[in-house]
Amino acid sequence: MAAQGVTPRGEDYARWYSDVVRMADLAENAPVRGCMIIKPYGYELWENIKSALDSRFKATGHRNAYFPLFIPMSFITKEAEHVEGFTPELAVVTHGGGKELEEPLAVRPTSETVIGHSFANWIQSYRDLPLLINQWANVVRWELRPRLFLRTTEFLWQEGHTAHATEAEAVEHTMRMLDVYTDMATTECAIPVIKGLKSQQEKFAGAVDSYSIEGMMGNTWALQAGTSHFLGENFSKAFDIKYLAEDNTQQYAWTTSWGVSTRMVGGVIMAHGDDKGLRLPPRVAPYQVVITPIFKTDEDKDSVFAFASQVSELLAGAEVRHHIDERDGLSPGFKFNDWEMRGVPVRLEIGPRDVEGQSVMSARRDVPGKEGKQIVPLDAVAERIPALLTEIQESLLQEATAFRDSHLHEASSYDELKEQVKDGWSLIWHCGTRECEDRIKEETKASSRCFPLDINETWEPAGQTCTVCGQQAYGRAYFSRAY
Amino acid sequence: MAAQGVTPRGEDYARWYSDVVRMADLAENAPVRGCMIIKPYGYELWENIKSALDSRFKATGHRNAYFPLFIPMSFITKEAEHVEGFTPELAVVTHGGGKELEEPLAVRPTSETVIGHSFANWIQSYRDLPLLINQWANVVRWELRPRLFLRTTEFLWQEGHTAHATEAEAVEHTMRMLDVYTDMATTECAIPVIKGLKSQQEKFAGAVDSYSIEGMMGNTWALQAGTSHFLGENFSKAFDIKYLAEDNTQQYAWTTSWGVSTRMVGGVIMAHGDDKGLRLPPRVAPYQVVITPIFKTDEDKDSVFAFASQVSELLAGAEVRHHIDERDGLSPGFKFNDWEMRGVPVRLEIGPRDVEGQSVMSARRDVPGKEGKQIVPLDAVAERIPALLTEIQESLLQEATAFRDSHLHEASSYDELKEQVKDGWSLIWHCGTRECEDRIKEETKASSRCFPLDINETWEPAGQTCTVCGQQAYGRAYFSRAY
Repeated sequence: MAAQGVTPRGEDYARWYSDVVRMADLAENAPVRGCMIIKPYGYELWENIKSALDSRFKATGHRNAYFPLFIPMSFITKEAEHVEGFTPELAVVTHGGGKELEEPLAVRPTSETVIGHSFANWIQSYRDLPLLINQWANVVRWELRPRLFLRTTEFLWQEGHTAHATEAEAVEHTMRMLDVYTDMATTECAIPVIKGLKSQQEKFAGAVDSYSIEGMMGNTWALQAGTSHFLGENFSKAFDIKYLAEDNTQQYAWTTSWGVSTRMVGGVIMAHGDDKGLRLPPRVAPYQVVITPIFKTDEDKDSVFAFASQVSELLAGAEVRHHIDERDGLSPGFKFNDWEMRGVPVRLEIGPRDVEGQSVMSARRDVPGKEGKQIVPLDAVAERIPALLTEIQESLLQEATAFRDSHLHEASSYDELKEQVKDGWSLIWHCGTRECEDRIKEETKASSRCFPLDINETWEPAGQTCTVCGQQAYGRAYFSRAY
Repeated sequence: MAAQGVTPRGEDYARWYSDVVRMADLAENAPVRGCMIIKPYGYELWENIKSALDSRFKATGHRNAYFPLFIPMSFITKEAEHVEGFTPELAVVTHGGGKELEEPLAVRPTSETVIGHSFANWIQSYRDLPLLINQWANVVRWELRPRLFLRTTEFLWQEGHTAHATEAEAVEHTMRMLDVYTDMATTECAIPVIKGLKSQQEKFAGAVDSYSIEGMMGNTWALQAGTSHFLGENFSKAFDIKYLAEDNTQQYAWTTSWGVSTRMVGGVIMAHGDDKGLRLPPRVAPYQVVITPIFKTDEDKDSVFAFASQVSELLAGAEVRHHIDERDGLSPGFKFNDWEMRGVPVRLEIGPRDVEGQSVMSARRDVPGKEGKQIVPLDAVAERIPALLTEIQESLLQEATAFRDSHLHEASSYDELKEQVKDGWSLIWHCGTRECEDRIKEETKASSRCFPLDINETWEPAGQTCTVCGQQAYGRAYFSRAY
């Protein structure tokens, strides 16, 4: 409850992050190592991200369903790359109902296999395609170096799974969902992500091609905030997902999968937070506005609270998520700092003079001091506060975009890359090979983020060679430190 | 896809149920025995129940949070009755990340233990109380005789967990949530549940008292559709949930827990379904209205579809969840039967004559034949259809209430009870002992449902003896066959 400060970012960014997560009451470690407890304030942030995604999925024709937590081990092993990628991370149930199981069960690390099995049953003919399904679920991937939200053994996510009649349609859908993620990250979380193709080494185990959105965090590291995979016929062949085509032939379906997880909450924290704590984009903030009543006498208290509830009604009418801080025995200054640390976009101060003047003093979280303050007359609250929230949302996006752009570099030599990744992302011509990526990672700690789609018009352009190893380049790729 | 009929209820009720679940595309068995796959139509029904509950929880001051799936085995064993009740049903993870774990982990069967552990950390003083938390999650209880929705190894639910300063407050909250469940079941699912106290034998493992809502299904069996538990200080003492009281003494908190699960979907199916299939209450129906275009020529098709989309816009404006059946190659008659089987409350038929007359023909699922049909002019759609949905919702509740009331009996002898439970519920004076309940169950297959709150003014009333065994009665209780 103490409104002591968080560790400054410049001093220790990792500690700043854990301070914010702990002090803003977002999450904490569970008794089982690697797992997390998402506290109400953190969960409400996730709920807002979730609902922003869910409405977009429904608008693009997807329907939600639910598949089992437990997957027979024999399913995991059906797709060759998939088994190799996920086996080391599995949690395995060996006993159920007091007995040892005949076949151990994997706790789902992702659901391509068990959903592929269902798709094979559900799809008979081309009339059943496309099949567009999404699932909201928990998944488990054993994690040796957990960090709250960013990397936890259990996490919450959505996983979309679709099947299509043609390769072109499935590729198109993979890109459509990447665009949905880009829109969500930009519009809702105010994170200006870069979308691109992952290298073969970094792709999903079982995919033909993986695409991601990559956001820049406050220390210039990258966060992969969502992925969209074109799975080709890999899972169709492993699970026999076939359909009768219009020409009466049996064809394998083409599938995709895509996911965004509670990791995105970590992205919001790190993309916008400052040395005072969180700064939440209004569209995903649990509370967009907090009202702090200020009073000394009991008489003042009554009139201030009465006025605060008038303001509250106006905000409710304007569909502004808000909270009145009615806590006893805490000074206004303590409350200001506390809500600042929790990143509430707008604070409304109401004291006896405001009651008298029939107005409130609004203060922006993103603009410190007097500059961010303005007097809002009571009868303008319902109009001005939503407008202010829109302005803050845009402003946070602009600030994050300016920060990102000033830390995007292009390197024409390996030495330049080495310098650039110390404080930003470095764009190079890149061969895309595992050997070259491993070397760069070992020598600079920077990993291949993606081949951005908007600056790569063709793959393997003639005459372009890898900036690091000199082989034929696959395209231009960003390298950076990453979570 | 075939619109063949479901098995009549009178012929085989269990088969009727599985037919409806399968043919209405609600759910199916998962490859792992005991688990289920909830298909989109079933999941959307659950989503509507979920959102009706969630808004009620928020309105009563609860906040959502998320606790881990895995619980150390040592936690489960801390509360004596809890360990005894749940150990036989546990799924146990023994391996993670390729290694055998030092301490096996239980997949949560319910979360009193792990949440109790957090509450002990979160609660310091009386100012932190009441603490009102809800979690939406999957839970696992090993199930030997699974039935889709009713009894599955993994199921989805919400579990509320609260802590209070006094016993009275915790008891009051237990009852408040029972009332919330009663309201939800009645208002949203049109199931007129009876709320009451469970016998000591039937209570939750670790509770002081358990309360439930019991609904009557179409075969007169009971379904326990939600439970609310007063946990006393049992979990507080096991997990050391203490607070500093206003008088500066350390006190144990008083806790409650309460849950509703995907079982409720089974309740909706069985409370309202008829020999043609599902009948869904409009407030929880995935589609409240289905529009079936009827045409023979291509020219007619164009005008019918154009008119259908006008109707669709009006329905969308009135916030009516609806669907246009655009499937090719199926006759209108097939589609009518299909949507009847899927229980959509209102069907709108649109043919060339309707286009000409600028009206639609509406047909109620709950009123067969001509009686349920009416012509609705286009300009009345936005007003009349929502009104019709309200009428259907009320009508289904009335019908279910009349059915229930005609199958509630009072027995003044054990012989009467034996007769009554063949086709209804039997109310008796009941001692509440395990021996007596076990005997009744063995001899009649009927179990103790609850001591209804509204007809038991006092417990252990002087001079009243158990109708079956003659001992002092605890109160009046319903017995019936149950799921």
